[in-house]
Amino acid sequence: MSRVISTLDVDLGERSYPIYIGQDLLRDAKLFRRHIALAQVMVVSNETVAPLYMQTLLDSLQGLQVEQVVLPDGEKYKTLEILNRIFDQLLEKRFDRGCTLIALGGGVIGDMTGFAAACYQRGVNFIQVPTTLLSQVDSSVGGKTGVNHPLGKNMIGAFYQPQAVIIDIDTLKTLPPRELSAGLAEVIKHGIIKDAEYFSWLESHMQDLRDLDPEALAHAVKGSCVIKSRVVSADEREAGQRALLNFGHTFGHAIETGMGYGNWLHGEAVGAGMCMAARMSRRLGWLSAEEETRITELIAAAGLPTAPPELSSERFMELMAVDKKVMAGKLRLVLLQGIGKALISEDFSIEILQETLQSTTA
Amino acid sequence: MSRVISTLDVDLGERSYPIYIGQDLLRDAKLFRRHIALAQVMVVSNETVAPLYMQTLLDSLQGLQVEQVVLPDGEKYKTLEILNRIFDQLLEKRFDRGCTLIALGGGVIGDMTGFAAACYQRGVNFIQVPTTLLSQVDSSVGGKTGVNHPLGKNMIGAFYQPQAVIIDIDTLKTLPPRELSAGLAEVIKHGIIKDAEYFSWLESHMQDLRDLDPEALAHAVKGSCVIKSRVVSADEREAGQRALLNFGHTFGHAIETGMGYGNWLHGEAVGAGMCMAARMSRRLGWLSAEEETRITELIAAAGLPTAPPELSSERFMELMAVDKKVMAGKLRLVLLQGIGKALISEDFSIEILQETLQSTTA
Repeated sequence: MSRVISTLDVDLGERSYPIYIGQDLLRDAKLFRRHIALAQVMVVSNETVAPLYMQTLLDSLQGLQVEQVVLPDGEKYKTLEILNRIFDQLLEKRFDRGCTLIALGGGVIGDMTGFAAACYQRGVNFIQVPTTLLSQVDSSVGGKTGVNHPLGKNMIGAFYQPQAVIIDIDTLKTLPPRELSAGLAEVIKHGIIKDAEYFSWLESHMQDLRDLDPEALAHAVKGSCVIKSRVVSADEREAGQRALLNFGHTFGHAIETGMGYGNWLHGEAVGAGMCMAARMSRRLGWLSAEEETRITELIAAAGLPTAPPELSSERFMELMAVDKKVMAGKLRLVLLQGIGKALISEDFSIEILQETLQSTTA
Repeated sequence: MSRVISTLDVDLGERSYPIYIGQDLLRDAKLFRRHIALAQVMVVSNETVAPLYMQTLLDSLQGLQVEQVVLPDGEKYKTLEILNRIFDQLLEKRFDRGCTLIALGGGVIGDMTGFAAACYQRGVNFIQVPTTLLSQVDSSVGGKTGVNHPLGKNMIGAFYQPQAVIIDIDTLKTLPPRELSAGLAEVIKHGIIKDAEYFSWLESHMQDLRDLDPEALAHAVKGSCVIKSRVVSADEREAGQRALLNFGHTFGHAIETGMGYGNWLHGEAVGAGMCMAARMSRRLGWLSAEEETRITELIAAAGLPTAPPELSSERFMELMAVDKKVMAGKLRLVLLQGIGKALISEDFSIEILQETLQSTTA
């Protein structure tokens, strides 16, 4: 039986949209119909998720002109070339400007479908149905869409908001434990940068989350979405506040790129990246050793790596130099003054950075 | 000697920008520097325009980190694949979010560079330097950017505004006469849809324009930009008014697609398309025979075709069915109630449309 547990409005003026969090929402035909303007609907999914959930969703869309595109699964397929398959299908089926795209899958599917929606005929509607914890707490809020380039992650994309995000937490039952952990990295991140109380709640409920307790999951998904949507609403274009959400990501992206996309999960790289950022903050004298330990332990309790793979500090620096967070050649990092207190800084010596890179290499 | 003849502000709130129209503006280093925030500049041009004007522009950008991408020339290269060359170059040269892209060329270069700027790291600055009459009066105003797909023109793109448009009318001296005529199609269109007085001025100055009289050109470019920017300012997202700018384009796009991109110039197809739309308006009893004749004669005087190539009415209908102007399966056309008075209508019999398609086939 479909049940909306909670609803959250992401406030972006005329581009505001609701996030629904609940159980069995894929069967809630009325909920989908409420956000589909006209008859043409294209569901974009991948080869892992489609066999599990496509038919259930299609049943909820009966009576509409529904088509589907099933892409190969994985970060390495998040390319312009694979994106073009969505455009091919939209044009072959003669989809017009009034159509709606539905992203059924994790972050890669959400990012690609959102970017396709942003670009198709210069912008059509889309609905996100994130089926991984990572995409539920992260990519479903904030309007970031796009694809990777061989020389950098998410280098080609758009800011584009969905009509609605429909989060069915029951889909987490089929998620591999490793991917659940990867999602928990972003959940932990939200606590670290903005909310010490939420961080404490996570310390005492980490096992419930890993055991898929529905009440705990709904609480964590909503808590994370609230923090992220608050940050995003205040600063849609990432001038200031929003950059805090990159905590752990500059190091994390370097790890992902250095290891080749898809070998480390995004959340795993962010987990290690957050430990590195915490360590660097402690080295700068900004964060206490006790707080660094709490952060590292919670990340470990989530089943995530707490140190990067073997990469020389030279290679690390090189990889960080093409990261999006680099403005005019100056490296800016998100660092900590305490749990719940992040800041953006370029005010650190290169030596402290290099020490951090060396000392944390496994 | 550089000389700004006139300046126009396109009013779009926080995304407003100036258009400078003048002579020898490629050498106006100060004008360029005023709109470049940080040091990294990528000039995008094509194999025809680059040998003529690249060095002059590079000289005006001395002291900055300037790189260039020279693309093959022509509508058939306006693809996602060729677009990717711009991204390759930006990433190879480690361009960051503070960079500026400059489009040096016609509409294809402007559309592709603007789309690359819209997507690179989800949005960087760009400046348009249109070197064809068509791009000076059309694609430099309105924020439409994008690429083609084998199944339709401009199907993949974004609305994205430049920091500035710098129109050096001296570049028209190297423009082939056939392309000058193609640009005049859009100039005429602006008169037809919005301004009977401007249309009359064009009737008496068409030869001056074709003879490249500088005062006449500057007047026409400014007049067209004023009309278009007024329409665009009122309605940035093409809900209502802006669709009037598609006058002649639904027929025109069908001609272009049917003949294969690049065989007919865009302006030529629009010229023939406007004659078809005028004829259909007369058949509907909305436009007088005298006004239809004035329109057809001005289009002919500009050196443009006044009838489409040989395409069956069935093929025409098929080609129009994937056009962007089709909402939910209903064909909407821009038609005329008089010179200077265009309207959007779906209130016509399919027979009148078919008669128009048949009778105008050469």
